Amino acid sequence: MHMRELKWSPEEKAIARKAFNGSLQRELASVMAEFKKKAEKIQEPSEMWDLEEYLEKARKKIDRDYDYRYSVLPEVFGLLISQGRLSEKELAGLGEDKLSMIRRIVSFRSE
Amino acid sequence: MHMRELKWSPEEKAIARKAFNGSLQRELASVMAEFKKKAEKIQEPSEMWDLEEYLEKARKKIDRDYDYRYSVLPEVFGLLISQGRLSEKELAGLGEDKLSMIRRIVSFRSE
Repeated sequence: MHMRELKWSPEEKAIARKAFNGSLQRELASVMAEFKKKAEKIQEPSEMWDLEEYLEKARKKIDRDYDYRYSVLPEVFGLLISQGRLSEKELAGLGEDKLSMIRRIVSFRSE
Repeated sequence: MHMRELKWSPEEKAIARKAFNGSLQRELASVMAEFKKKAEKIQEPSEMWDLEEYLEKARKKIDRDYDYRYSVLPEVFGLLISQGRLSEKELAGLGEDKLSMIRRIVSFRSE
């Protein structure tokens, strides 16, 4: 079965949304902490433009990785888990059809 | 006479370069001070993207305004003086041909 064909129940959607948002919030908080540390250390004007680039890259990576469409969500969760940005426990309650697909993606990405 | 036709002596070029760099350094220092203040105050991740935009705009404005080509330099100095980012005193030593052109630009811009 392709992930586009998965059916998500309302309960599964709530679990998915919570896991997705939790990971996104942690990611944003971590970028923000790093950004504030970098900003504080700036001594030369040229370093501001490095930081502008850092922010742009972080924003684009987040925009790219956090795509909440059910048709790609297993891929998104697989990516986040394989990179340690989400734990499988946060997905507890999803149907086995989604979990097994996510695990396959994780193991594929970890190879 | 058009400003493109002005001849700049080595002494005038040194004065122009010093005034230009001085204004640019002040501008960068001021953007940096403002940036650090803003960065320190950030509480929400979304504010980072506002700051990214602030940096991008500041960088583009500086790139646009600080154009060190002799063919446009009187225009650049006129702009900087009319906006209080350079004082005419810093241009002391330039020939009257340049100074009168710069003053015309300043008075035109101040109208």
